Amino acid sequence: MAEQSPVRGCMVIKPWGWGVWERIQQELDTRIKDTGHENCYFPLFIPMSFIAKEAEHVEGFAKEMAVVTHHRLKNDGGKLVLDPEAKLEEPLIVRPTSETIIGDAFQRWVKSYRDLPLLINQWANVVRWEMRTRLFLRTAEFLWQEGHTAHADRDDAMSETLKMLEVYREFAENVLAMPVIAGEKPANERFPGADNTYSIEAMMQDGKALQAGTSHYLGTHFAEAQNIQFQNAEGKLTFCHTTSWGVSTRLIGGVIMSHGDDDGLRMPPTIAPRQIVIVPMLRDKPEDAELKSYCAELQAELKAQGIRVLVDLKPVKSAEKRWNWVRRGAPVIVEIGGRDAAGNNVTFMRRDRLRDGDKVVSHTQSRADFVTNARTLLDSIQSALFSEAKARLDANIVTNIATFEDLERYFGSAAGEDEGGEFKGWAGVAWSKPEGEALEKVGERLKALKLSIRNAPMDQPSLAGRTCLFTGAPAREYVLIGRSY
Amino acid sequence: MAEQSPVRGCMVIKPWGWGVWERIQQELDTRIKDTGHENCYFPLFIPMSFIAKEAEHVEGFAKEMAVVTHHRLKNDGGKLVLDPEAKLEEPLIVRPTSETIIGDAFQRWVKSYRDLPLLINQWANVVRWEMRTRLFLRTAEFLWQEGHTAHADRDDAMSETLKMLEVYREFAENVLAMPVIAGEKPANERFPGADNTYSIEAMMQDGKALQAGTSHYLGTHFAEAQNIQFQNAEGKLTFCHTTSWGVSTRLIGGVIMSHGDDDGLRMPPTIAPRQIVIVPMLRDKPEDAELKSYCAELQAELKAQGIRVLVDLKPVKSAEKRWNWVRRGAPVIVEIGGRDAAGNNVTFMRRDRLRDGDKVVSHTQSRADFVTNARTLLDSIQSALFSEAKARLDANIVTNIATFEDLERYFGSAAGEDEGGEFKGWAGVAWSKPEGEALEKVGERLKALKLSIRNAPMDQPSLAGRTCLFTGAPAREYVLIGRSY
Repeated sequence: MAEQSPVRGCMVIKPWGWGVWERIQQELDTRIKDTGHENCYFPLFIPMSFIAKEAEHVEGFAKEMAVVTHHRLKNDGGKLVLDPEAKLEEPLIVRPTSETIIGDAFQRWVKSYRDLPLLINQWANVVRWEMRTRLFLRTAEFLWQEGHTAHADRDDAMSETLKMLEVYREFAENVLAMPVIAGEKPANERFPGADNTYSIEAMMQDGKALQAGTSHYLGTHFAEAQNIQFQNAEGKLTFCHTTSWGVSTRLIGGVIMSHGDDDGLRMPPTIAPRQIVIVPMLRDKPEDAELKSYCAELQAELKAQGIRVLVDLKPVKSAEKRWNWVRRGAPVIVEIGGRDAAGNNVTFMRRDRLRDGDKVVSHTQSRADFVTNARTLLDSIQSALFSEAKARLDANIVTNIATFEDLERYFGSAAGEDEGGEFKGWAGVAWSKPEGEALEKVGERLKALKLSIRNAPMDQPSLAGRTCLFTGAPAREYVLIGRSY
Repeated sequence: MAEQSPVRGCMVIKPWGWGVWERIQQELDTRIKDTGHENCYFPLFIPMSFIAKEAEHVEGFAKEMAVVTHHRLKNDGGKLVLDPEAKLEEPLIVRPTSETIIGDAFQRWVKSYRDLPLLINQWANVVRWEMRTRLFLRTAEFLWQEGHTAHADRDDAMSETLKMLEVYREFAENVLAMPVIAGEKPANERFPGADNTYSIEAMMQDGKALQAGTSHYLGTHFAEAQNIQFQNAEGKLTFCHTTSWGVSTRLIGGVIMSHGDDDGLRMPPTIAPRQIVIVPMLRDKPEDAELKSYCAELQAELKAQGIRVLVDLKPVKSAEKRWNWVRRGAPVIVEIGGRDAAGNNVTFMRRDRLRDGDKVVSHTQSRADFVTNARTLLDSIQSALFSEAKARLDANIVTNIATFEDLERYFGSAAGEDEGGEFKGWAGVAWSKPEGEALEKVGERLKALKLSIRNAPMDQPSLAGRTCLFTGAPAREYVLIGRSY
């Protein structure tokens, strides 16, 4: 899927991983367009003055970013060095996110209420200097889409924020087969400058939470900082309400850690670059030609149904090919030997149910049946992966924790699962939604256990009679607590 | 389409311009995959040591590039400044092209002849610090695809180089409706480090040439610099032969300057984000509802044929909408008034033939006929735009220039067309293909006239009896000379 590059914290995304990203882009882009957004492209670089202006307005703003200071190298006695004469007057920041540069355009583009809502999306690479990086989950450079919208009032902006949260939820569950819980982040976990931040959270196989997408209602903070105003129907200049929302290549990490098993990855058919891979069992003999043409016919029949299918003809042993595709997680792996071709049959493995005990299970069907049922087979693999992950999520949210001591006892020491701890999942608890210092104290107590509040699910259970885990006061909200990536 | 951003030399690509780029990506990506290439993604940053190594091996290597030297800002008494403690040990270069970072991966990925050919493509943003920038044609940041391939021998690499040149030619002509001449660049115009550089050259409406795509055979230069070796069938370690090839957002500039007229852009239907735009002539009256539903039905009928169609319902006057779409170059603009709806008719304009003299020409057809013929109409617009540009190209290559004095006389002073000069097109001349210093001298003489050799067309005419324009020696090649962007 990917590998570390020689550049600190940056990855090389290999063809199979990139193919997954292409599928993710296609599926999500359709949804973004269907909800009325248009794609644009804004500069990679942001003038430092823009960032400085944002820093004035927005507290808790991150400062780890790549800074361009020179625009030329020169040869100094055979050695390549920075050319001091090519120092930029104003340093440029490699975008960590594009709020400021897009806000600058919005300020030019928005004049009247007739220009609203302004619904823009961008697919781009961004850079955030991270101390600890991990393939797909946390990398210095990553790829994402960032939606930025401007609205006439709070209601319209808030409905946009929640609409896109729902787009992400539906996309994660139906396309990535990754069940998620959509909800609102607590105030101390908001995007700096946001009035409300919402997220979808997925449970990985080690029980940790992955924040897989966020949607922010930014109030008028950014509009005020950047002077994004419009003339309303009464002719009065008014600040816009803005939103932003994004998902990134981190989703690929989520897919890997949602569906993988001991044999490697398992790709949901909807995003698998190849849904069916056909491995002809070649033997460097004249019969190979017949085998190849049988495979080509099968490929054509599947392709005609719009299935992404590959015949793997690499000059490598068939057993090695099979295991390559198992490891990569091709949903269906077909192996065609001389007997299959002679009997007009197809022998295949379902990657989602590869083994019975230790034994690899393969099925044989007539070619006609296999072709007729191929779409149904892929659909059933897609829903089996979802159901398996959904059952794990549902089974691993404990809801009988009423006090902080219970929580401490349940999650044990601060040791996470990756330090040899047990799989714990999440706790669904009630709290009184404290603010300010009281909230910060809650954050610290949780942090000492390596825990955090993931979100307050949109679907809230009844809180009747329940009290706050942290203060004992009457409960105001149900939230999920867990360890996270 | 695009506008200047507050970042020097970087542009904001607006929805209509981005939509064109999306279409270009889709059409070209299909062709790149159909010829056996796989997409990957490599880091935005390149360690300075990689560039230094390339500079040692490759002469004439450009040094204008954006250099990242710090990874953090800090607050210094209320002012945001570079954090001196966050200075990088080794500066990072924002990729101007990815030969070195991809070569580094190839050196790891290629082990045996079984791994060859290695056929990789990347869609990415790159940065080259340009002194003078111009929207789409020359910008500091631009978007492109860069193909990089490794082969066992020269023949295989050369056939790849020429295959991709042909892909570009076919793509430019059939998708962009932009006639081009495919040929080889003279030695002094090669990509630094290339053994052979090929290009497609398009003639803009002012007679200048636009280099619209290049394909390079790199010999073993990059493989030697980066140690890309493979074990051949006899077990011997051998350097790969590599190629690279790319086209960029510059193509959008080419489309604009190939097809525009006094009324604005004219987009070839194949890449127009909206092929048919329907403008209902609304009057803020109850009858509007009927008009809208008539337009929605028409839209659905066209959409069912896979046509990209929009009903423009913006709260703006219809005449303003019409001219917006004329300026943007929507291929077919439909205007539906009450009479059209009542008579079940469609009134439309062909953007490629907007006027008869000064008068705007519109046509009325029954809705059924319009829907039935819509595909054919779009096809005929596509080919009309191509034919018009092709006729201009064919008519504006003079071939009767035999001496440098003729050339000087023909192109006149050094003044280009943009300085008030006359439209001159190109000259097709014979030359003796000088090398080294003699070639440099040719380059300088041409440069004094603001001219350059664009390429030596793949289709060479007979040179029997012809002599070199520069030296009078027997001719060895037919080349095109022109002014360029």
